[in-house]
Formats: sequence, C-alpha cells, structure tokens
Amino acid sequence: MEYEEFTIEGRNAVLEAFRAGKTIDKLFVLEGCKEGSMQTILKEAKKAGTVLQFVKKERLDKLSETGKHQGVVASLAAYEYAELEDIFKKAEEKGEQPFVLILDGIEDPHNLGAMIRTANQAGIHGIIIPKRRAVGLTAAVAKTSAGAINYVPVVRVANLVNTVKELKKRGLWFVCADMQGTVMYDLDLKGPIGLVIGSEGEGVSHLLKEQCDFTAGIPMKGEIDSLNASVAMGILSYEIVRQRLAGESL
Amino acid sequence: MEYEEFTIEGRNAVLEAFRAGKTIDKLFVLEGCKEGSMQTILKEAKKAGTVLQFVKKERLDKLSETGKHQGVVASLAAYEYAELEDIFKKAEEKGEQPFVLILDGIEDPHNLGAMIRTANQAGIHGIIIPKRRAVGLTAAVAKTSAGAINYVPVVRVANLVNTVKELKKRGLWFVCADMQGTVMYDLDLKGPIGLVIGSEGEGVSHLLKEQCDFTAGIPMKGEIDSLNASVAMGILSYEIVRQRLAGESL
Repeated sequence: MEYEEFTIEGRNAVLEAFRAGKTIDKLFVLEGCKEGSMQTILKEAKKAGTVLQFVKKERLDKLSETGKHQGVVASLAAYEYAELEDIFKKAEEKGEQPFVLILDGIEDPHNLGAMIRTANQAGIHGIIIPKRRAVGLTAAVAKTSAGAINYVPVVRVANLVNTVKELKKRGLWFVCADMQGTVMYDLDLKGPIGLVIGSEGEGVSHLLKEQCDFTAGIPMKGEIDSLNASVAMGILSYEIVRQRLAGESL
Repeated sequence: MEYEEFTIEGRNAVLEAFRAGKTIDKLFVLEGCKEGSMQTILKEAKKAGTVLQFVKKERLDKLSETGKHQGVVASLAAYEYAELEDIFKKAEEKGEQPFVLILDGIEDPHNLGAMIRTANQAGIHGIIIPKRRAVGLTAAVAKTSAGAINYVPVVRVANLVNTVKELKKRGLWFVCADMQGTVMYDLDLKGPIGLVIGSEGEGVSHLLKEQCDFTAGIPMKGEIDSLNASVAMGILSYEIVRQRLAGESL
C-alpha cells in the first residue's frame, strides 16, 4: 500500500511523532481507550490541534499495516504545511498583488493534486484548506500535483471563515465560485484576490459564501449539472490571469 | 469488476456481438490461434475495422472474467460512437459555428471523461478521437463524464490527420494546444474551429500539428512542466467560449 509510509502505529511511535513536531493529519484511537499512555497521546493531540477520531476495533485493524496498533494509528501528512505569512511573502517577492486560493472541503486527492498543479502555473501564491472534512497533503495528492506541491505553499487552518475575515482586513477581495454567480467575464478580478472553490458535492458553505465580495460563474451551455472541480478551478483561475495580464498591458 | 459487463468472452459470444453490429473497442486473440471459428471471428473483426491484438495466454486469462475465453476476449464500448455528420447537425441545430474537439491519444479514462463533461458545458458540438492508442468510451469514462457522455457526440476515426484535412475543406480552422504556442489571449479564436489537444506525455503528434492553422499556449508561470490535460482543455475551451461571447456582444 502506497499509504503505508505515512501511517504511524503503536503508542510509543505515535507519541514520538508528536514530540518530534511531525504534522499528523488525523489520529485514530480505539473507542473507549483513554487510560495510561493513551492519556498522554490525547493530550499531545489536543496541544497540536490534531483531528481526532474514535473508531471501532475493526476500523483500526483495517487502517493498521502492521496489525500491532495498540489502539492508535496516526496518519501523517506526506508534505509539510506552510504558514499564511509564506503566501504574502511569495507575492511580495514576485512584486505581485496576492492571489490566494481557498478550497472549501475538497475530498478527492486527485482534484486537490490537480489544483495544486494548476495553482503553480497560474501564479497563485498559496492555497488555504480546512483541517476538517477535506483531504490533506497525502501521497496521492503529491503524485497528482506532478511536483507542484514542492512550490505552492499550502496552509491548513481550523476555520476558513475566520481566515477569510483576517485576509479581508489585509486588503484581499474574495470571489466565490458559484454556478448561479455573475458571469466571470463581466467581473473585475484584478487586484489582491482570494478565489474560493467548493467541493464537488456541496459547493461553498453558506457561511463562507457570505464573507465573499462577489460570486463568479462559468457560463454553462450543457445539459448536465456542473464541471469537475479542478477543471472549474482552472477556468476561473485563468480568467483572473487573463485580467491581470490585460491590466499590465494597459 | 466494473469492466465486466463490457467484456464478451468465448468464440460464439464474440461472433454474435459482431453480427449484432455491436461496437467492439478491441479484440484480444490468443497468439497463434487462427483455426476454425477463430478464422470467422478474425474476418468479422477486419470487416468492422476492429483493433486486433494477439496476446499470450497469461494476458488473456487476466482479461477474462469467466476463465472460459476460448482464446478470445472482446472489450466493448460502453457507449455508441457518433458520426462526423452528427457534429455538424448539432452545430446547425443550435445556429452556431462548429466547435469541435480533437483528442490525440488520451489514454487516461478520467481525463477523457472530464473532457467530455467540460465539452458539454462549453458548448462543444462533438469530439473526435482515434481508434488506436487512446481510450474509448468505456464504463470509467462514462462515469467520470457525469452524464455528459449522453449529450456529446464522440466520433472515432482511423486517422486523425485525414479527418482534420476533411474538416478544413468544410471551413474549420484548427488550433493546436502547445506549451510553446502563441499566448491564447492574443489569438482570434472565433469562427468555425477545431481545438486539438494531445496526450499528457506526448502532446500532439507531429503530423497532426502540421495540419493546424495556429498553436495556442496557456501562459504558465510555474516551476513545473505542464498542466493536467483535462484542465488545459478546459482553460483553452473557455477562452474560445469567451471570445465567442464577446463576438456576439459586438
């Protein structure tokens, strides 16, 4: 299994991973198991803000590669996450207005990987994803990103709404992908911008959409519902690229 | 296995499929096996222009679901292919200039499915794919297309270069996706158009590129090589959509 190298199992191994400051994506703990060294692990998890999930023995056995999980399996990020400041730093280094991508609940690793790849090419300075209900920087994501994961800062935050509020204070405008939104060609998408893309199933959450300054739609002539999330992200991102280039040549 | 229902195995079953006029994507025949009823099958395959592949017993055993292949396994299209005329008919019905997508050697079913989906939304009137060295309309493609496979005519031809020559005679201009091409925003992409997209690995073949009137590039700012093929197709297609919409509003 490809996933193997990013799973740490057993109480000592997991505890050491926390103490070494490794980024643990998710911690799976046996239901009802809170005694002894597990107590210490749970404390470390809380301190690190790790997403915790109590599961039945059958689930844990499935997650375990070694079969010796001692009631705990940690799934690790294949890549390190960045900080918000890294995004601003990148924009500043390039002498560009910040261009940030906010991904609300993307669960398919191939979509996230493809989006990181497109973000690199479109000159997006960084991506922000939520800690919960979304895929993190796993091995599959890294593979689909075709190497772009090494160049695009990906920041993981506890609450996207709060982060967007913070970024608005720092001068960013937010545009939310929305099938019923204003046709993207009719919007002014220049300037410091955050593009918000939702998951394939759910779209952008209500609370997050409320924070956005505009909605942007891709004209759709088809009989079906929607576009693949990573294709839609590519089309919207490149409309921003087009407008930025046109702005430069004015 | 999802693929099961689109595999036909055994001599009688395969022969009947041919006689019923079913579209067989590919015929796998045991190496050296040409006697008796196999002779008849090979004749039918030739008549239908089916791609034929002689394989070793181990390969055939793997392809077989039933284990009773009798030296022959046919892999069937999940969906029926269209004719070139269907594409022109669709454009005419909508009162639009033809907008055709030519896919040169896409092998990943997820990419083909995503492209069919985008084609539907972008108002592309039909897609042309080659018979050889490319994925056909399999079950996986149908699934990724999110239903769009039912609305977008997909034509499969023996020789893309000849087809492009024919379409040029009928007034289409061809633009070839090419990383080193003219920046797409600087091209005039209105009018009857064929967009040519190559495979991720190889790009558009030399002979096909020679037939194209322009090359179009997506501006890439990144450190990596390229974009995902279905994302690139989406971005280029929507630049054509944008120019067509702008043309209407003039």
